[in-house]
Amino acid sequence: MKLTVLGCYAATPRAFTNPTSQVLEIKGQLFLIDCGEGTQVQLRRFKVKFSRIERIFISHLHGDHFYGLVGLISTFRLLGRDRELHIYGPKGIKEAITMQLKLGDSWTNYPLYFHELESKKPQVIFENSKVVVETIPLEHRVYTNGYLFREKPGDRKLIVEEAVKHGVDKSYFNKAKKGFDVPGEGDELVANHLITEDPDPPRSYAFCSDTIYLPRLTEQLKGVDFLYHESTFLSEHDHLATKTKHSTAAQAAQIAKDASVGKLILGHYSTRYPDIQAFADDAERIFQPVELAEDGKVFDFDK
Amino acid sequence: MKLTVLGCYAATPRAFTNPTSQVLEIKGQLFLIDCGEGTQVQLRRFKVKFSRIERIFISHLHGDHFYGLVGLISTFRLLGRDRELHIYGPKGIKEAITMQLKLGDSWTNYPLYFHELESKKPQVIFENSKVVVETIPLEHRVYTNGYLFREKPGDRKLIVEEAVKHGVDKSYFNKAKKGFDVPGEGDELVANHLITEDPDPPRSYAFCSDTIYLPRLTEQLKGVDFLYHESTFLSEHDHLATKTKHSTAAQAAQIAKDASVGKLILGHYSTRYPDIQAFADDAERIFQPVELAEDGKVFDFDK
Repeated sequence: MKLTVLGCYAATPRAFTNPTSQVLEIKGQLFLIDCGEGTQVQLRRFKVKFSRIERIFISHLHGDHFYGLVGLISTFRLLGRDRELHIYGPKGIKEAITMQLKLGDSWTNYPLYFHELESKKPQVIFENSKVVVETIPLEHRVYTNGYLFREKPGDRKLIVEEAVKHGVDKSYFNKAKKGFDVPGEGDELVANHLITEDPDPPRSYAFCSDTIYLPRLTEQLKGVDFLYHESTFLSEHDHLATKTKHSTAAQAAQIAKDASVGKLILGHYSTRYPDIQAFADDAERIFQPVELAEDGKVFDFDK
Repeated sequence: MKLTVLGCYAATPRAFTNPTSQVLEIKGQLFLIDCGEGTQVQLRRFKVKFSRIERIFISHLHGDHFYGLVGLISTFRLLGRDRELHIYGPKGIKEAITMQLKLGDSWTNYPLYFHELESKKPQVIFENSKVVVETIPLEHRVYTNGYLFREKPGDRKLIVEEAVKHGVDKSYFNKAKKGFDVPGEGDELVANHLITEDPDPPRSYAFCSDTIYLPRLTEQLKGVDFLYHESTFLSEHDHLATKTKHSTAAQAAQIAKDASVGKLILGHYSTRYPDIQAFADDAERIFQPVELAEDGKVFDFDK
């Protein structure tokens, strides 16, 4: 599981900071989370093979999370995409995008599916053999969801030398990885635990932006490995956070602490602050470890 | 009159090339022409005082000319704009923008006016004491207009030493600049031509993008000082130009020649070509002088 931050600043795109967008890679699958203006340029800049993106998750319909989507969809068409694309986001997103494509008489020539969200309760919105994705209902000035990505357990890891020692034929290796006992020396069944070991633990990643400080999140986020939680403000401006329905870095840390997550990643910084290190300082008083998102930064969650 | 090219490439924004947008300054007034994705970042990068933009002219509703508009309008709100903003563009532009603002519950707190265009004949769409703007109906895959900006003649230039020599009191200087004869020595009327000279000739600028080669344009563009005409392709790909309703550099030059314009500026380059100098070469066989638009390039039309 690997996260590439394309943009992590609040409000408007500027010459050297970008609004929210992230690419999450899970076992070879690419998921795009939010898509502020300029996201397609960031995808090129950081050499993401973006034709491989199959699913895009939009948290809410504020410009800094969403205005780059129609351009990306159009660019996929220009690049000759043929594989299908799925968009998950608040109700209204389909009309906003399709109206613009229609005005430009620029329909996609690949299948484009919208999955509009309205529920205020967590729901599983995508699942395949490798991952399950559920919504994290948030509270902001408009209807907003975070997204929780949970890897599914992988195959057991074959200990090749043990398998050979027990006389297991190669043709049974895949079956052994699935957890079965398999024939060995003299066709005697070999107990699976003798020739395999537990798979890497499945990873989980939660994206929570934008939201007011929401203590109830801790229940759904319990034990998540990596939590990205917005921190638009520092504690000294908590009145602004409350007023605009954003969070402070300390509030993000409180969620991380109460949910016992593995690591907290901060982002969605207001550009009023000259140095983002202040966000880490604000959060680390309450919870550690804390990492700072930065445009272009890659987090390898398997290391 | 001064033109700042913010972006001049066709199709999609890339790391180092930007889709169409230009700022035209006429006697202190800023006009934005087209607004591809990333325009607001380009405005910041090239230090345009963009709060001063009062009127935005959109040629057509393809993404590379229009997808940056909603973000710019939103940013104006975040920056606390209070002066009114006027948008000129094809019918449908109002709904596309207002729907997105509504979805984000992000109405502007400054007056925003849309002037939707439908006519296929040239029409004057804005006029004040300094400039008149008319549409240039073009032919592309969707309804498209170019825009023709004509400065109005300025005041006559006062020759101060002659005015003093003729005993004209300072309080009459403004009246003299307006072309009147004014009292001089002994209250005798002084003929205006003795103390003033002709004003600088008013400049005109025509923006034509996107369009198929359209010979009828030469009538409306006759004698224009500066013509920006799209040149998506080189002559070797004129079949692609016809197919996609774009022009070649040579076709742009043919328009410039037939309309006897002062100078041709090329732009809207397909990114298939590694070196834009080829566009100048293609055009200069037919017409000179030719200039190449480049992202960030400034043309001072008064020099």
